[in-house]
Amino acid sequence: MLRVVGIGPGGADQMTPRALAALRESSVIVGYSAYVELVRPLYPEKEFVATAMRGEEERCRIAVERAAAGEEVSVICSGDAGVYGMAGLVLTLAARERVDVEVVPGMTAACTGAALLGAPLTHDFAVISLSDLLTPWERIEQRLRCAAEADFVLCLYNPMSCRRTGYLRRACEIAMQFRSPETPCGLAHNIGRDGESGEILTLEMLRDANVDMFTTVFIGNSQTRVIGGRMVTPRGYRAEREEA
Amino acid sequence: MLRVVGIGPGGADQMTPRALAALRESSVIVGYSAYVELVRPLYPEKEFVATAMRGEEERCRIAVERAAAGEEVSVICSGDAGVYGMAGLVLTLAARERVDVEVVPGMTAACTGAALLGAPLTHDFAVISLSDLLTPWERIEQRLRCAAEADFVLCLYNPMSCRRTGYLRRACEIAMQFRSPETPCGLAHNIGRDGESGEILTLEMLRDANVDMFTTVFIGNSQTRVIGGRMVTPRGYRAEREEA
Repeated sequence: MLRVVGIGPGGADQMTPRALAALRESSVIVGYSAYVELVRPLYPEKEFVATAMRGEEERCRIAVERAAAGEEVSVICSGDAGVYGMAGLVLTLAARERVDVEVVPGMTAACTGAALLGAPLTHDFAVISLSDLLTPWERIEQRLRCAAEADFVLCLYNPMSCRRTGYLRRACEIAMQFRSPETPCGLAHNIGRDGESGEILTLEMLRDANVDMFTTVFIGNSQTRVIGGRMVTPRGYRAEREEA
Repeated sequence: MLRVVGIGPGGADQMTPRALAALRESSVIVGYSAYVELVRPLYPEKEFVATAMRGEEERCRIAVERAAAGEEVSVICSGDAGVYGMAGLVLTLAARERVDVEVVPGMTAACTGAALLGAPLTHDFAVISLSDLLTPWERIEQRLRCAAEADFVLCLYNPMSCRRTGYLRRACEIAMQFRSPETPCGLAHNIGRDGESGEILTLEMLRDANVDMFTTVFIGNSQTRVIGGRMVTPRGYRAEREEA
């Protein structure tokens, strides 16, 4: 059996019992080295196979091969198994070998980051990765533009890497074509790990903000407000309208 | 202390330890009656306050009042606390009373439903509620149109209620203006509860599909495929391109 397991932001307190059980039932746990180090202390008796960043295809091939040979294997993903996770690649490779796959979901940064900031995602939202490693930048810009135009709250993954700078600035400029520079925005840093912090700022400030690969970015819609120091997108209840 | 707690789809195996701890530390647990019945067996010694459907404002007011009086209170939400949850309303009401609020995230249907179907959300996606109870339908249509045009995977909450029929049909017609009628789509029924099932079908079939208020709908993007009977949106890895 092969499982793709979302481990959430990192700590065991945000891993579901279902995910913990999947790991407990595995003999081999495969993942990116940084995530393997998060899980290893929970199951020190297991065999771990860690591969480097960008080693996704290698990692998933190893997992499928070992599951095809009859082992109980889990591929771990930070956050959810599906949202920018390994579930798609594993299912694709496993289908060729006729290996059964169970996808075990986990807490994704959209939800854990939103909770840290308040309630930015209580209305329709779009999740966009700013990484152009596997997606043409023109396509990313088109999605930013359409989502900003239709007044979605935006949740941005991978706002920055060593190689890529200036992408968040560009995303903010696109959003500002449709939204006020005063629009409340939020940064969720190091969710569920040491140094966890939330930061609320305006869209204009976000344009020049410092982010890293452990930051998730939220851009409010036209109704989002800062209430009691928290980022809140109203759903439309009467009590919320009284606030506006 | 007041907490807004996402309990996930229902069963304790998809509630995070953090959410379970929040409930354990509460003396009063407030929620919609159907969700209260899911949680009551876990903590039979607690006081529960259940209100009917559409009782959201009443429920949140009770919770804020009791927390203001010094009690440990949790407001429970199905799925996540933020995604169409009570976090925004609670934060709004609590700010007036200067009550501290912690938002405890939970597994939302986008992630749990996606896992049931395969991996539909491995690329950029938009989450849209088809409920026009609090949002004008024209706004919902605009979001559907923009998201379909920009080739987001679509995840639709509240595709149907007793009062509303024909909304999913209209959403599919909008999507078909931009996507093939053969686009893979998925239905996640009764996620995490009795009768849980996933169903994969084409966009054209989805237009006439039976859904209810316990269904979450996924509409693939232009790249989404059915692989080994699962719904998979490729991220763009080489192994996935070989498949296409």
